[in-house]
Formats: sequence, structure tokens, C-alpha cells
Amino acid sequence: MELLKARIRKDGRVRGSDVLKVDSFLNHQIDVDFLGELGKEFCQRFEGCGVTKILTIEASGIGIACITAQFFRVPVLFAKKNQTRNIAGDVYTSPVESFTHGRTYDIIVAKEFLTSQDRVLIIDDFLANGKALEGLCKLVEDAGATLIGAGIVIEKAFQPGGDRLRRQGIRIESLARVKSMNEETGVQFY
Amino acid sequence: MELLKARIRKDGRVRGSDVLKVDSFLNHQIDVDFLGELGKEFCQRFEGCGVTKILTIEASGIGIACITAQFFRVPVLFAKKNQTRNIAGDVYTSPVESFTHGRTYDIIVAKEFLTSQDRVLIIDDFLANGKALEGLCKLVEDAGATLIGAGIVIEKAFQPGGDRLRRQGIRIESLARVKSMNEETGVQFY
Repeated sequence: MELLKARIRKDGRVRGSDVLKVDSFLNHQIDVDFLGELGKEFCQRFEGCGVTKILTIEASGIGIACITAQFFRVPVLFAKKNQTRNIAGDVYTSPVESFTHGRTYDIIVAKEFLTSQDRVLIIDDFLANGKALEGLCKLVEDAGATLIGAGIVIEKAFQPGGDRLRRQGIRIESLARVKSMNEETGVQFY
Repeated sequence: MELLKARIRKDGRVRGSDVLKVDSFLNHQIDVDFLGELGKEFCQRFEGCGVTKILTIEASGIGIACITAQFFRVPVLFAKKNQTRNIAGDVYTSPVESFTHGRTYDIIVAKEFLTSQDRVLIIDDFLANGKALEGLCKLVEDAGATLIGAGIVIEKAFQPGGDRLRRQGIRIESLARVKSMNEETGVQFY
């Protein structure tokens, strides 16, 4: 998606060889009008798939998921990273190894909100090693729901997650696929 | 706001004397069309205030903040609860005591996204003891920004946060103010 690539070139900042900071518009400060354009694009790509629910993971997936869900006219469900006293009862859970935080945590959704009738589109801001996406896919599978696919804003295609999950048959639509990046030359896209 | 009170009466579940579960439409599963109605209401209440930025806190504030921000045509900034390696550099920080999680954590925003030129509307899903809102107000103050006020979806008005912060001169607009609740009789509103 050229609009997104242009925005990353303009406002993204590369740190080292694998950190792409887009916190001025995507995952700390959020440009909601711009996210509307991304949401529209996801809606076109998954048109006619009968999506009934958008699944994401806290925290940085929530904004893009909510704005995208407005185009699909379906609810969002966001997986929580820790069980709090406010989620009681039956949950689906899946362990996720976090590259950013250097630890493994459980992600959780309440069973009542993800059922075998659901046709689920997963939305997230980044895909790199694919651990979060894998965990979300497992929640969908455990619920007996139908996985339509995953809509990703930025895929670090030089990391193994996207290829591994596509080989498993999962449809992944990434709006920008980063081929390589470094602090001197910036970001190269596919 | 009658629409919200009706939805809470229909879908909210009271646990004990102080937990109100609204996770079927507000803070786990999210009804984005319904949140659009709440966002429109916030926009009317704070019309003409010159809001330049909406500030919230991860995770459950992000959805309502993003959808509300579409009506104001301003960016969202969400405070993060832990410093990760992806937020480098200068940050404003404030300690927040969490009732839900039983611990104190720091909330953080990058200084570059909150400046003395900003006129800030804080948006959050719940106001109870007011600790999160207080922490967000401190970030605004530290940045030298102008605090327009706070838009809250559900205020537990039987807890002390709202009254304490209003006494400090902060304008708080809560769309539903809970007077009392219990498992037998449900929720009573002001």
C-alpha cells in the first residue's frame, strides 16, 4: 500500500537492524484518520469473506482493530496479556513469546466471545517472528471458529513469522512488507 | 446518557459490590458502532474547547479514545504502562496505583508527542478511585499542556475518584454515573 510506505519513509525511524519506530502515527500516538485509510484497505482485501469478528491483542493492536471493524460492521475482541480479577470464568489461553519484552506471557480471551460460529479476521500492527499471531490463531482454533486470515499493517518480511505462517496455509495480507532496513539507508520494501 | 445506561442494564454484570463487568461491549469485546455513539456524545460535550489531542491509557481506553478522536479529528496518544525497549529517549512518567491489579506501575508518554501547545482531552472507560486519571493529569501538567477535561464512559460515583478530582477543578464528563450496585438488584444510576 503506497500511502503506508510513504508514511513509513517520512515518519518511521530505524533503530539498529530490526527496530522500526512508528510511534508517531501507529502505536503510541495514533493518527486515526490515517488508520481509517488502512481499515478501508483491509476491508477491500477481505471483502466477501463473511467476517463476523475481528480479533487482536492488547495494546497496540486495539486502535487499528477498532477502526478497521467500523468498515466491517463487526465487533472487536482483544486478547488480554494477563489474567486479571475482572476476567473470571472460562477462557481460551495461549502462550506467546515476546521479542520486544524478552519474556513469555499468556494471552487470554473469554470463551463466550469466541464461538464456533465466528469467522475471524485477525488484525495487528506488526508481524515479525509471528509469535503473537500464532498465539491468536491458536485461540481461534481452540474455539472451533473459522480463521479467515490476518491483516497486518507492517510485516518485517526479513524475519521468519510471515513465511512460516503462510506455509501453514494462513492467508496473511500485510499492507507494507519490509525487505530490509538500517539506520543509514532507511527502509526498503517489497 | 440513556443509551449507555440501557446497555449497561442489559449487558452489564455486577460481581460483588464493586465490580461491573461490561466486557461484552466495552473493554474486552468492543461494539464499535455503539462506541461511535459514545464518541459523538463526548464530541458534543467538549465542542468548541479546541481539543488538539486525546490522551488515554492502555489497554481498555484505546478503543473508545480512537473512535472518539475520529469525531474531533485529532490524534490519540496512549500512555504505556511499562517502559519497553521500543520507547527510547525522553518520557514523562507518573506512578499509578491499580485497584484491578493490586500493584503500582508507571505510566509513560514520549515527550515529543505531548507539548505545551496541546489542549488535551483525557478519555477512559472507567473512573473509580481516580488513580489512573490522576496519573494522566500529571503527564499533561508535566508537559505544560492545557487540560480541557476528562470524558469517562462509566463512573463508579460511589468511589471517591470523581469527587476528589472535580474538587481540584478538573472538568469530568461521565456518560453514566453509577450510584450503587449489587448482584441482586443490579445497577442504580444518578
